Amino acid sequence: MEQEEGVITRNFVVIGHRASTTGDFNLNDLAGGAGRLDVLLRCITSALLISNGIRKDTDIYLVLQGGNDPPKTLRIEGYSVRYLNPDERSTGALVRNALMKELEEGEEVRSTPGIYASGRDFRTLIEELARKSKIYYLKEDGEDIRAAAGQLDRDTPMTFVLGDDKDLTEKEENAVLRHLQHKPSILSLGRTPLHSDHCITIVHNELDRVL
Amino acid sequence: MEQEEGVITRNFVVIGHRASTTGDFNLNDLAGGAGRLDVLLRCITSALLISNGIRKDTDIYLVLQGGNDPPKTLRIEGYSVRYLNPDERSTGALVRNALMKELEEGEEVRSTPGIYASGRDFRTLIEELARKSKIYYLKEDGEDIRAAAGQLDRDTPMTFVLGDDKDLTEKEENAVLRHLQHKPSILSLGRTPLHSDHCITIVHNELDRVL
Repeated sequence: MEQEEGVITRNFVVIGHRASTTGDFNLNDLAGGAGRLDVLLRCITSALLISNGIRKDTDIYLVLQGGNDPPKTLRIEGYSVRYLNPDERSTGALVRNALMKELEEGEEVRSTPGIYASGRDFRTLIEELARKSKIYYLKEDGEDIRAAAGQLDRDTPMTFVLGDDKDLTEKEENAVLRHLQHKPSILSLGRTPLHSDHCITIVHNELDRVL
Repeated sequence: MEQEEGVITRNFVVIGHRASTTGDFNLNDLAGGAGRLDVLLRCITSALLISNGIRKDTDIYLVLQGGNDPPKTLRIEGYSVRYLNPDERSTGALVRNALMKELEEGEEVRSTPGIYASGRDFRTLIEELARKSKIYYLKEDGEDIRAAAGQLDRDTPMTFVLGDDKDLTEKEENAVLRHLQHKPSILSLGRTPLHSDHCITIVHNELDRVL
């Protein structure tokens, strides 16, 4: 994971509970046949795109658990991603290409520049990220991120974990909670329940203001 | 414009500088042939949708200035809108239906529930909204919304004006500035330049916290 000197990396992990894990879905049916892949595509855009640019300090991981070949994890790296546009359809085409790649055991395979696929499951991914970043879990009953933002560890890369249109299952939540010995670590974004991509936008805005 | 008792209406106005004004575009080419209509569709979603619900206190106005029949203004009313899903393609289909309606001079025509089309131009729309709400202009060099949020007039409906992927032209800006006698009225969302839909998400978050 390359990064610029002195810039703290921001990672987002989004679970696609029934998102397609093969590339045989129709780009005209991203919300239906592709298992709410539309939610994840909007998360990519919120995580990585700003006006006329890309957040080079940010990576997003999509853990896809639906379809015929689960689990798969896609990593889209802001530092090196190319051909990324803000619309859902073209982002869907990039993801489809990545899901068509043949995977290698225990390795990330590059699809297009900055887009990588692997067979990692959620628990393995979180363990890996916990070794090199602090994990933060976005949850409605967590501590208000605005009150907590000043207390975040600014010297360590940060990983924010959230669900798609479904909350984390108990098992998924347990895989996260064991890495939350630090405080604050369970964060909420206010009282209004929001879509995942909107949550990512707000996390970035908070971090932009304190980092 | 119906609204719930005691709830202050939030309006967003987004200018689509080259967005299609007729319904003959292809849903597979929303970013290209439809004149960056994709930007406006994401703005609809950010303005109106929360997790498992709709912001009934919010309306969004899209001022379309491209294509073969400019100008057109679409109003999507949170209070009554139906069939609205978060994905771009289905929202694009709703907008396309609205652009196929035959307009009547000086009247809003209903397309589907909560979606209305008219031939109003930007200046006329802003004048109308200035009579029944306070206008706020989102601009990068404005006053930080976070500092200003506590000073917003909480007893008057609010209208937030922004561009699509292009800033307002000088003429458009002048049409707004003449309605900004109050302070604060030119608001920024932080130092990072953001996409329009992300701006709307952050405005909502600020308002959710103070209203």
